[in-house]
Parts: sequence; C-alpha cells; structure tokens
Amino acid sequence: MPKVGIVMGSDSDLKVMSKAASMLEKLGIDYEMTIISAHRMPDVFFDWAKAAEGKGIKVIIAGAGMAAHLPGMCAALFPMPVIGVPMSGKNLDGVDALYSIVQMPPGIPVATVAIDGGMNAAILAAKILATSDEEILNKLKAYSQEMKETVQGKADKLNELGYEEYLNRK
Amino acid sequence: MPKVGIVMGSDSDLKVMSKAASMLEKLGIDYEMTIISAHRMPDVFFDWAKAAEGKGIKVIIAGAGMAAHLPGMCAALFPMPVIGVPMSGKNLDGVDALYSIVQMPPGIPVATVAIDGGMNAAILAAKILATSDEEILNKLKAYSQEMKETVQGKADKLNELGYEEYLNRK
Amino acid sequence: MPKVGIVMGSDSDLKVMSKAASMLEKLGIDYEMTIISAHRMPDVFFDWAKAAEGKGIKVIIAGAGMAAHLPGMCAALFPMPVIGVPMSGKNLDGVDALYSIVQMPPGIPVATVAIDGGMNAAILAAKILATSDEEILNKLKAYSQEMKETVQGKADKLNELGYEEYLNRK
Amino acid sequence: MPKVGIVMGSDSDLKVMSKAASMLEKLGIDYEMTIISAHRMPDVFFDWAKAAEGKGIKVIIAGAGMAAHLPGMCAALFPMPVIGVPMSGKNLDGVDALYSIVQMPPGIPVATVAIDGGMNAAILAAKILATSDEEILNKLKAYSQEMKETVQGKADKLNELGYEEYLNRK
Amino acid sequence: MPKVGIVMGSDSDLKVMSKAASMLEKLGIDYEMTIISAHRMPDVFFDWAKAAEGKGIKVIIAGAGMAAHLPGMCAALFPMPVIGVPMSGKNLDGVDALYSIVQMPPGIPVATVAIDGGMNAAILAAKILATSDEEILNKLKAYSQEMKETVQGKADKLNELGYEEYLNRK
Amino acid sequence: MPKVGIVMGSDSDLKVMSKAASMLEKLGIDYEMTIISAHRMPDVFFDWAKAAEGKGIKVIIAGAGMAAHLPGMCAALFPMPVIGVPMSGKNLDGVDALYSIVQMPPGIPVATVAIDGGMNAAILAAKILATSDEEILNKLKAYSQEMKETVQGKADKLNELGYEEYLNRK
Amino acid sequence: MPKVGIVMGSDSDLKVMSKAASMLEKLGIDYEMTIISAHRMPDVFFDWAKAAEGKGIKVIIAGAGMAAHLPGMCAALFPMPVIGVPMSGKNLDGVDALYSIVQMPPGIPVATVAIDGGMNAAILAAKILATSDEEILNKLKAYSQEMKETVQGKADKLNELGYEEYLNRK
Amino acid sequence: MPKVGIVMGSDSDLKVMSKAASMLEKLGIDYEMTIISAHRMPDVFFDWAKAAEGKGIKVIIAGAGMAAHLPGMCAALFPMPVIGVPMSGKNLDGVDALYSIVQMPPGIPVATVAIDGGMNAAILAAKILATSDEEILNKLKAYSQEMKETVQGKADKLNELGYEEYLNRK
Repeated sequence: MPKVGIVMGSDSDLKVMSKAASMLEKLGIDYEMTIISAHRMPDVFFDWAKAAEGKGIKVIIAGAGMAAHLPGMCAALFPMPVIGVPMSGKNLDGVDALYSIVQMPPGIPVATVAIDGGMNAAILAAKILATSDEEILNKLKAYSQEMKETVQGKADKLNELGYEEYLNRK
Repeated sequence: MPKVGIVMGSDSDLKVMSKAASMLEKLGIDYEMTIISAHRMPDVFFDWAKAAEGKGIKVIIAGAGMAAHLPGMCAALFPMPVIGVPMSGKNLDGVDALYSIVQMPPGIPVATVAIDGGMNAAILAAKILATSDEEILNKLKAYSQEMKETVQGKADKLNELGYEEYLNRK
Repeated sequence: MPKVGIVMGSDSDLKVMSKAASMLEKLGIDYEMTIISAHRMPDVFFDWAKAAEGKGIKVIIAGAGMAAHLPGMCAALFPMPVIGVPMSGKNLDGVDALYSIVQMPPGIPVATVAIDGGMNAAILAAKILATSDEEILNKLKAYSQEMKETVQGKADKLNELGYEEYLNRK
Repeated sequence: MPKVGIVMGSDSDLKVMSKAASMLEKLGIDYEMTIISAHRMPDVFFDWAKAAEGKGIKVIIAGAGMAAHLPGMCAALFPMPVIGVPMSGKNLDGVDALYSIVQMPPGIPVATVAIDGGMNAAILAAKILATSDEEILNKLKAYSQEMKETVQGKADKLNELGYEEYLNRK
Repeated sequence: MPKVGIVMGSDSDLKVMSKAASMLEKLGIDYEMTIISAHRMPDVFFDWAKAAEGKGIKVIIAGAGMAAHLPGMCAALFPMPVIGVPMSGKNLDGVDALYSIVQMPPGIPVATVAIDGGMNAAILAAKILATSDEEILNKLKAYSQEMKETVQGKADKLNELGYEEYLNRK
Repeated sequence: MPKVGIVMGSDSDLKVMSKAASMLEKLGIDYEMTIISAHRMPDVFFDWAKAAEGKGIKVIIAGAGMAAHLPGMCAALFPMPVIGVPMSGKNLDGVDALYSIVQMPPGIPVATVAIDGGMNAAILAAKILATSDEEILNKLKAYSQEMKETVQGKADKLNELGYEEYLNRK
Repeated sequence: MPKVGIVMGSDSDLKVMSKAASMLEKLGIDYEMTIISAHRMPDVFFDWAKAAEGKGIKVIIAGAGMAAHLPGMCAALFPMPVIGVPMSGKNLDGVDALYSIVQMPPGIPVATVAIDGGMNAAILAAKILATSDEEILNKLKAYSQEMKETVQGKADKLNELGYEEYLNRK
Repeated sequence: MPKVGIVMGSDSDLKVMSKAASMLEKLGIDYEMTIISAHRMPDVFFDWAKAAEGKGIKVIIAGAGMAAHLPGMCAALFPMPVIGVPMSGKNLDGVDALYSIVQMPPGIPVATVAIDGGMNAAILAAKILATSDEEILNKLKAYSQEMKETVQGKADKLNELGYEEYLNRK
C-alpha cells in the first residue's frame, strides 16, 4: 500500500520527478506515481486527490511548472502534507512555478522545496513519515551519514590530488 | 440573466474587483459577483464554475492574489474566456499573482490584465461581448471618446494654468 | 472573411506565432496573418489596425518582444479584444515583453497570455468567438476532451512501463 | 512534552511567529517557542537543534529574514521535518529570505511556506503530525470546514448587501 | 519657439515631469509641455508627434508609467532624440515602465533615464542641445560647478557639526 | 575629426560595440573607438574623458557590463551627451549593467539604450547630431524608410509563401 | 590618525552611514567621515581616494545608492580593501545599488555588505584591522559575546512572559 | 602556515574557487583549500571554522550556491573577515546565492564579491592582508599595473587592426 503519492502535471516533469521516486525506493518507502493535469482533466484530478487518503497515502509530492496549480489544488483537497516541486521550464528559471506553489494563502500550506528539487521532495516525505516510523528515521540518519562521507571523500581526494588534477580528472 | 460572472478568492479583493462591477454597470452589462475560494471550498468552486455556462455566463472575471489559482482553475472548467486579475497584496507587489495567472500551460489560457486591473477586466469582458453585440460595441466606442475628452480637458487645463498652479490646485 | 488578425512585429516572432495560426486552422477559424512593426512603419500599422474592424476581424492576436508596444497600440485603435503574446527574445526571458504588454493603463486592456504562448493565444481567440458561435464552442469542448485523453494516455503508458523505461523510450 | 519546536532568529520575527503558536494552540498541539540566532550564538543553536529529537520534538518551525540560515541549519542537524518561514523584513519584500530558505541543496530539504506565513507553518506542522495522529487529522478537517463556512458567510453577506455597502461597512 | 517638447501620458505624471520643466527654465531653454495619451487618443498623439519637427522641436521628453508606450511611439514618429522617463507608479517600482521604455528594438532607440528621473531628462535634453549651442554648454558647466559646491558645502557642514548634530539639525 | 567617441571597458564588449561603429559608418559619421577601463586604468580614463571635448567629440557612446561604471563616469567628466550600452555578460542577463547605467543620480544623466543595444546607441548618437546637422537628419529619415521597406518585404514574402514555407526557407 | 575612511555620495546616506561611524567609535577605531560625490566632483573624489593611503587609511567604507559608482571607483584608486554599502533609496529597494556595487569586474573587488548595512560595514572594517591588531580582535570577540547575551536575554524574557505579553510590552 | 582558508560546499564549486587559489599563488600567499558542507557535515564544519584562527588563518574565502549558508556560518564562528562567493548554479543565475550571502543580519557581515567571482575573492583577501603586509601591498600594486597594461595592449591592438580584423582574429 503506497504511503506517498507522486503526481505531476505533464510528462515533461518526469525527469525531475523520477528522482523523487528513486530516492523513495532507496529509502524503502512505497509510492504510487502518475501524471494528472489539474487544468486538462480537473475531474480526474479531483477524484484522485480525494481518494488519496482512503488509499493510505500520507504525503503527496506534486511537481508542476509555469502557473503551477497542481500542488496547491492537492492541498485544497488532501488533509495531510503536500510537497510542491517547482519546475524550471523554458523561461523564467522556475520563479513562476516557485511563486505559484509557495505563496499559498492562509489555511492551505504547501511544503515547497527548491526549483527542480525532486530528490529533496522525497527526502522531505521520508522525514514526514519518520515522525512516526523509526525505521525510516534510521534510514534517514544513515543517508545523512552517507552524504557526509561522500563529501569527506571528495575533500580527501582534492587534498591528495590538488585542484588542477582534480579538475582535469573529471 | 448575467453575461459576466465576477469571482474573487477573498473579500480582501473586493476593493479592486468592485471596479469591474461598476464598469460593467456603466456599460449596461448584467453580471453576478461572488466570493469563492478554490482552495478553501473546492467543491463549491467546482460546482459554480461548471454551472456558469448553463446560467448564460459568457465571460468569467476572476481576481486572486499570491499563488492565484482561481483564474486558472476557472479556465480548466469553463469553456469560454476567463479574465484573470492579479492582486498586489502585501508582499511582492503582485508579481506572484501575475506569474500564477499569466503563465498558464498550453491549452488553458487565461486572459490576464494588469496587476490590480479590475476596471480593465470589465472593459475586456465588454470587448469580448462586443464581438457579437453591436450595442456594447457602440458603448465601448463612446467610452473611448469619453476617455479621450477627459485627457484633452486635462491638457487644456494644464495649458491654461501652467504646471505650478495645476499641481497646487489638486 | 477572416475573424482573427494575427500580427507580429518581426519575422523572428514567426516561429511562436505560427502556432497560433495552426491552432486556428485546427479549430476551423479563418484568420489573416502579417508582419507589421508599430515602430518601423507606424503609418502602415495605424491603417491596418483601424481597417481591421471593417474587414470583419473580431479579435487581434499581437505578438512582440522587448519593449513590446504592438499589442497595446492595437488595443488603442481596435475596439474589440486584443490578445498579447510576449516573446522571450535573447535577454530577460520575456519579462520585458510581459510587463510591456500586461501592464496597460486603465481603459485599454490587452488580454495577455504566457510568454511565448502563441498556441494559447489562438485558443483564447476561439474562446472569445465561442461566446457567440456554438460550433466553435463545440470544437473547443472536443479539443479539451482530446487534451484530457492525451494526458491520460501518457499516465497509462507511465503506469505500464515504469519511469525508467518511459524516460529511456523518449 | 512539546511535539513542535518554534524557533526564530530575532524577536522582530515574533509578530509573525506568534501566529504559528496561536494556531498550534487552537489545534491542541504542544509546542515550545524560543529565540535563537544561528549567527549570534552558534553553539547554543547547535545544542538546541541536536537536543530537539531527544525532547520529543517531531517538527521544527523556523522563521528568519534576510540571509535566513536558521531553517537550513536546523535541517542539517534535526532528522525530521523543518518548516521554514521567510520574513519580509525592511527591503526586498522577503525574496532574500525566500531564496535563502527554499533553495536548499540536494539532501537537506526545508519545507518552505509563504513569506510571513507563520500561521500556515503551524497548519503544515499539524498536517505532518496528522499522518500518524487521527485526532489532529480530525481537527484539521474541522478547521477546513470552518474556513469554508467563513468564506461562505462573506459571500452571503456580499450577496445581501451589494458591494458598495459591503465595502463601506468594513 | 520651443526647442524641447515635454509630453506625458497622464496628469499623474506631472509631479515628476514638472521637474523637467523647471530645470529647462533654469537653463533658459524654451519648451512646450502637454498631456497626450498614446493609448487614449492615438490620432491626436500621431498628429502631435509628426508636427513636432515642423514646430522646431529638437528633443522630445516623454514620461510614462506601467506599459509605457509613449516614449517609444514618439521615437517611431520623430526623427530626432526622444528621452524616456519611466514612472514608478503604484506597483513594481517602475520596473515595468523601465523595461517598456529602454528595451526598444533595433532601429528605434529611446534615450532612457532613471525611474522618476524628470530633472535628469531635462539636463540630458540640454546636453543634446549643447552639442551645437555654446551658451547652453556654458550653462551646463556652470550648473556642474554649482552641484559640486553644494556637495562641498554639505561636506564642510558635516565636518563642522559632526554626524549627530548634522542629522538632528535636519 | 571624430564627432563620436566609442569607448568600452573590455574587448569582450567589442562584438556589441562594433555594431555601433558600423552603423556610424553607414550614416557617414566620423568616430574614434577605444578600450579604456575606468576601474583598471582610472588615470588614463580621466584624461581621455576630459580631453574628449577638446578633440571635437560631441557624443560619447560607452558600453560596459556587470557593475558598469564607465558610462556614468564619462557623464561625470564630459559635458555633452553620454549614451550607455548595458552588456548582458554571463549572469543576470544584463540587469546588473542596466541598473548601474540607467539609475544615475540627479544632475548626471546617461542616455541608456537596450541591453546589448550597440546599434541603437549609434542611431541615438546620430539623432543627437541631427539636431544641428540636416545631412545626418536626412540620412536618418532614409534609414527609417529603409527599415520600413525591409519589414514590408518580409510581410509580402510571408503573404506569398505562407508561414510553413517561410519558416522552412530560413 | 584615522585607519578607516567613511565616504558617501550624498548626505541622504548619512543616516545609514552614521551607524558605521558609531560602531567604529564603540570599537575604539579612529576614522574620518566625509561626503564626496564621484559624479558631481570627480576631481575632488580622485584626489581624496588617492590621498587615502598616504593618510594612513587601511580600509575605506563607501556608501551609495542607485547607480552606486562610489565604492567601485574607490576600489579602482585605493590599494587596500573597500567596503561597499548599497542604499535602498526610493525605488527598487536597493537592488540597483547592490548590483552596481557587488558585480565588480575581475581585478577590482568591492567587499559588499547588506542593503543599508552601515553597521555591518564597520564590523567588517574592524575584522579586517583585527587580522593584525589583537586589541581590535579582542573587542570583536567581546562584541560577539555581547550580541549573544542580548539574544539570550530576549529568549529568557519571552520564556518568562509568553508571546502575548512580550508583544504587548513592546 | 596558511593565511587564507578557502572552503566550498561542493566540488561543483571547484572550477570557480580554483581561480581564487591560483590568484593567491600568483600573489605568493599561503592558503589551504578544502570542501566542507555546512549542511551535510555540520560538526566537521563547526570544528574547521573554530580551528581556523588557531591555525593562523586570517581570512576565509567561502564559496556556495543556492541557499548558500556556508559563508554566513563561517562568519558566525570565525572572528576575522569572511569573503563570500555566490555561485551561479543551474537556475536563478546566482541571485539566490547572492541574497543568501550578502543579506547578513546586523553584527555578522560577510564581504560579498560578484557572482562566480572566485578570482576577485582572492584579490580581496590579499587587500585585507595588505593592510599589514607591505610586500603583499606592493604585489597588488604591481598586479594593478599589469592589468592596466593588458587593457592598454588590447586598446593598441584594436587601434592597429580595426574592429573587424580584431574580432576575426579571436
């Protein structure tokens, strides 16, 4: 039974949103992922968003670009957290999507992450689930340790090689 | 029977949106006006937007601030033109609302007017109706003439008084 | 007899504006399309904008970039709706054109669509004509249904293939 | 035992952050609230952020303005969700704080809400807790119903009074 | 016979544009000043802009706010320099007007000055005339000297009083 | 004897500034062109800017990117018009240079043209000289006519070929 | 003998820049402070900036608004650090000054602080001097401790009073 | 013993930050360089920043992108100057990092240089050390002279070749 629902407005968002999916897999969290346009299929969207709670979904991750309404409309219909991922798209570097997602009115928050931040959306979803799931909490702590070691490894390599060789090597 | 539906997300938008109402009155166009939050009452909103065509409404004017989803969601549900009015609100001077309204994805346009442009929304609605209503077209032409004369009157007054007296007089 | 006039300031806008033309064709709406610079040939422009009503044109779609004056000047001369399409150009991602088109003063609205939103301009023109033309209204409803099915088809395909294969397939 | 920790960088943020506190009270959620500057007292901050989990805190709400580092540094030290509230401050309308909070690098998300969105931060915290607490979930549903009725009441009043009297009445 | 034509789109611009007028008076340069809206009275505007050269006008100063088309349209019709003054207006701090004025396409430049820079527009007009008028050139040099002495006087006063008394004194 | 001095802060600006040079050549106006950095060689710059008037230069065209001080410092030292050309550079699309050039304080205007607007700077210089030189004025009028015919030719070609062939042809 | 030179382009900057002066006084660092406009008195400015080293000045703090050239021109003439303070001014919230100061070209850095950050400029100057002056270093450490205690005192007071009384008390 | 510590949050910053290293080498200044993420390894970061003074480091150069907290957190822990280098990254052209670095609150300044300004950070560090080190001061003066001659050489070459050949030659 999926605990996280990943939804995006268009398959052009899939490259960013697939990073959310693969991170959830890495953390061992069940999810479902689909494409639903709040603008092009509002009825389908309404039914999906209303049905999510009944399916056991605890967190929705919604990605959208431009006038990104999908995350906010999810938040209007789903009573638990909605995480919004602004897409950078062709113009405006994603500032349009960022404002459309983060500037929600009083009463209907969307938990907004960085522009194109698909992976971070999954980590935030895991952090949310970790408030009541010690196994996920421990996986997150292990992942933090892993990140730390990765950076440390790069620092060691830089120290060993010097910056010129480090840059040439890449 | 109203031809124009005016809708806003909050009564804090009423000061701007009432300018749309009074301009429609001036042009003799029937309208209905209400407050519906797409975020706080999505079901009521859905029913209203879907019922609009059946009530004879030809144009919707939707005003909203911040992550302004109301105009775009109207456009997803109503098959004729939706005019969006971005509200300036407290921060960001209305750029958030402008982007949330104008940057609609392919297939679902919103006819966006200036930030806080309530009056212009009504004139645009009248121009839309004027494509098949000669009476409204003539009223718009008369209004254009009136605007021209108002500016001409100010130019004459400035010429007569000089800029110092003109400014002091105000 | 054309019902829609498409005009652009430069042939560098043609790639975006041709999407308006092809969408109007798809919806079976007669149009004329030309290149007129309000800055480089103001007299020709004035004559064209003033003659539009007499030729039966009901809606003008005007595309322009940078200090985009063409849509606003059309709106000053043509009594029915003018739809403005901001072009993204080389610098500033089209924010210059967006502001030059959408921020029209009281009395002279331009119905602004998204940056580079040529196709949406045509759909908006069709929506305007649909206020008095049931055939166009039905075509728009069919087009909405078509869009919905296209997204649904992508969602089904994603569900069938999984995201990795879906992304690789493209 | 507090489930939510509210922290802010300066007592100038208290007016906004107190809305988070009062909303948590309304929803019956225990919290602690304090002022800690990550810049002016980094050691105290480190100790506080590291001790939070042990005190039973499940969600941190962190508000900050300008180069707002407090939420991101909390997210570096606390393994469960951190909600960031950008403050608008004197210049830049809070865009500086928004970018400093939302644009977190891969691995360390902050759940960002609207500029000055103190109340929404509390609702988001409640939604997070509601993923494993049915009582809070029900309170959130009741609050949603309450919001809906408030807007409906305003719509009814507008309908009854007309816009002129409605505006004058305020 | 006026050498400079000052034109503005609305009498709300007069406070800024009157600074252009008073600076031209100080420098002893004849000017005419009027209010003409390119949007609300395009024919009057066309006639005025085309007649300017015949009246002996050498430079036009045009001020406008929002989607500020007046300076650019002057530049399309008048063969000598047009100076554009962006007005700050209610929203967007004048960035909309700045972009609408400065981002002119190849072939039709507008000499743009600072937002609300009415006085600087007059000085620029004088500098233009000074390319062939030694009397104006000398007046400009005297004005530069005067500015220098004013600042020097303030520096001396600050040195004499100290910053606390200087600030209290104001 | 040169009437126009073209100066730029770096040879990376030459591609844009050479368009100013070639347009001045086309209009038959003598110019000198050099590279002087106000930051890297302030003394050389001071001497050049102060000597310009004595060499017969009537207009300076100054191009610079980033924190573009060159045009403003020219305006501080040269009593006739300085035209500023903001360069787009690597980041920020030239907004940094635009603000650094156009937002000059009271008393010291710079005539700012579009970002990367080298050609327009030359036309503006010619318009300035045309205030006292009928030959240049006539060349500018001929150039305007030429621009008009170029656009008209493109419009005719589009009409003849249709948009698909026109676009493929390019 | 002053170690720090404080310079500003206009006495409208004095309110912000006086905070730099009073912080230097608090830290026991000798300074001189004056008003010099790089635009209105370039020769005086040149002489001042070139003489600074000879007078024993080790750091210059330069404040300016709009197209803020003063800090960058100081950096072109003075071989030790120049700290730039962008002023917020009337429009644009100081973004114009920030870009004009921070975006210096390769070779000529300006150490830029926050918009209106007069006090921070003085602390940065002290930190620079502290690289070779242990007494100043100790004063900075004491000041850090003082800041920490001030925040701690506010946190204690908030804890004691609760947020409602804390806010009312102010 | 290193006098300058160069630190960056990720090895993706190395290309820019290596310019700081090579400029310090050119100026003969000892430095150490490493990669430490304030977010991914806060304890390591804390220890490094606190140990820096004891190792003899006088200036820290910290580069970071997006929500760039590294420079500001260094400034919270290190009592001498911290120079911040905003990275341009994938979206937003580095404005996010610029705001996160420059808009530090009162008491904790970061000396901010241009976006991607790695080389300028090193020159600023050298200028800081030059306040008490005449050898470095002399090297900086020689470098200034070198820059001047480089530009002069380009100006001579442009004069010799003309702009067409100069551009083709590159």
